Amino acid sequence: MTIKDIARLADVSVSTVSRVLNNHPDVSAKAKERVLAVVDKYNYIPNTSARELGKSTSDNIGVVVRGMANPFYTKIITVMGSLIEKAGFTMVMQQIGITDDEIMTAAMMEREKHLQGLIFLGGKLDYTKEKMQCINIPYVCLTFNNQYGNLADSDYSSVCIDDNQAAYEAVEALFNHGHKKIAVLLSGACDGSVSQVRFAGFKRALQNHGIELDENLIIEINSYNITDAYEGMKQWLKKDLDFTALFAISDNMAMGAMKALREAGKNVPEDVAVIAIDGIEASEYMNPVLSTFCQPMEEMGREAVNLLVDIIEEGKPNKHITLKPLLRAGETLK
Amino acid sequence: MTIKDIARLADVSVSTVSRVLNNHPDVSAKAKERVLAVVDKYNYIPNTSARELGKSTSDNIGVVVRGMANPFYTKIITVMGSLIEKAGFTMVMQQIGITDDEIMTAAMMEREKHLQGLIFLGGKLDYTKEKMQCINIPYVCLTFNNQYGNLADSDYSSVCIDDNQAAYEAVEALFNHGHKKIAVLLSGACDGSVSQVRFAGFKRALQNHGIELDENLIIEINSYNITDAYEGMKQWLKKDLDFTALFAISDNMAMGAMKALREAGKNVPEDVAVIAIDGIEASEYMNPVLSTFCQPMEEMGREAVNLLVDIIEEGKPNKHITLKPLLRAGETLK
Repeated sequence: MTIKDIARLADVSVSTVSRVLNNHPDVSAKAKERVLAVVDKYNYIPNTSARELGKSTSDNIGVVVRGMANPFYTKIITVMGSLIEKAGFTMVMQQIGITDDEIMTAAMMEREKHLQGLIFLGGKLDYTKEKMQCINIPYVCLTFNNQYGNLADSDYSSVCIDDNQAAYEAVEALFNHGHKKIAVLLSGACDGSVSQVRFAGFKRALQNHGIELDENLIIEINSYNITDAYEGMKQWLKKDLDFTALFAISDNMAMGAMKALREAGKNVPEDVAVIAIDGIEASEYMNPVLSTFCQPMEEMGREAVNLLVDIIEEGKPNKHITLKPLLRAGETLK
Repeated sequence: MTIKDIARLADVSVSTVSRVLNNHPDVSAKAKERVLAVVDKYNYIPNTSARELGKSTSDNIGVVVRGMANPFYTKIITVMGSLIEKAGFTMVMQQIGITDDEIMTAAMMEREKHLQGLIFLGGKLDYTKEKMQCINIPYVCLTFNNQYGNLADSDYSSVCIDDNQAAYEAVEALFNHGHKKIAVLLSGACDGSVSQVRFAGFKRALQNHGIELDENLIIEINSYNITDAYEGMKQWLKKDLDFTALFAISDNMAMGAMKALREAGKNVPEDVAVIAIDGIEASEYMNPVLSTFCQPMEEMGREAVNLLVDIIEEGKPNKHITLKPLLRAGETLK
């Protein structure tokens, strides 16, 4: 299949196909949709980088980062960069937006950059065997696993915490402090991302206490961005609903929410207790210090690289590692 | 010169040289020092990556990041990663510690990764013509220039703000609010880094107001790290000196300092006004919001990549771009 075939099937010009495949901005949404539908249907993998064709071998390890501006990833990337280099490989990183398809990105990288292996840093938990056919190298899912997909354990490796359990324990901590009206700040409730898993843990904790889920207390922002969290929280607070605690699915989002709470005249933790998951550095310097379940970021980065290098160099089998988060008491829990 | 020659000259074993060159942890400080002295003297560039030897061409652009965990770099790296990719190149990033030699790192990368060009993100301002002889590709100094070195303008490109002027204006803002006893939190006062330039701007503002520099009000932490800033400030506060304002040379360091101030019972800005330079996202979500001069991070990343690609692809001459920071009023200035 060539780019011309795609143009014919999508009923657009060859240059339009080229623009879509190269992520050029000036292409209509409609044309883009038609091209991507064809690409998707035929599992077409473009090889756009002609200058790369001469290469036969490479020591590249690809890292696909979903939302690289997320400060949670900074330390993980730092650790991985140095370990990948020490193991004699080169880290080639590509960042994608929250709505982009990381598998497509990875498949293109595998071919263009001649990757030996891949690490998905952040991603969806619903990969399928069918979709993953376009990836022909070992890969590690880092910070997530495949609980909503149909991959066999032997198909892939993963390194993450038990996100459902972490959320459950975070909400339990709020219950232990006497809270019953608990709002939840999340990205998507059923987006196939870690947001959905943590929301499931939240619901499990409510059930455990015989409390019905109140849809009004769900703040869904479709983003992991701090500014979006701030704006979303600000809007939601205008409804003036009754709540005494907030579970934010990430530190970054909690930081955005805390600014909105402050501006609305609500004191943390006196008026609203806050708890989150992640444990980024900045949240330790907030006033008050955020109470949160800290993911072992350095360990996660190290385990992911070690796993992948063992598979590439020694042909070891895939493996799944679950690490334990640690509660940082902080000052936002009361 | 081979690794054996180095071993002979440094009077250590070949394996020790290898461990030093590969940054292996288990090597004595003394042996490391001896090996690096020889390496430095003979300008030796190891080519450790045998598997890379087969390659003749590459589309790699190297990015050497000094202190990658610094959140100030996150947005810049994000922008550069996407623009380098869009321009048809591959970003190969290497991070180094604050005491590492970025030129040596870059020279090794140039050879091992077959770079087409280089971006130094953060670095020393004292590069010399002699030292830069080991770099044979175009490079851009990003967030700094060569004001303490002897490079000709035509030797290199740069993208930065006028750091001396930004510091001067930050301190002027404190004077405008009536402050005269101003402490300064910095990495090094004469370390050849941006810390030295900003300190020079601080001193210029004092002079301008006829105020003598008080050595007791200089807090030097030899680091840009938030935890080190917090600890350094905490120690310094024990001296219980008289001051009403703090100029921190970076947002990150200001955030660390503000936690120490809070713990010491000092209110910001009532007891101590704080101003900084950088404008990272997290400091906008502090309580109170940090007053700071924001560097135009996205623009800086974009300009650096555009400059370098123009030089590589079109043979354009080197260029120096100075961008303007913007004051974020914040809440820590009073």
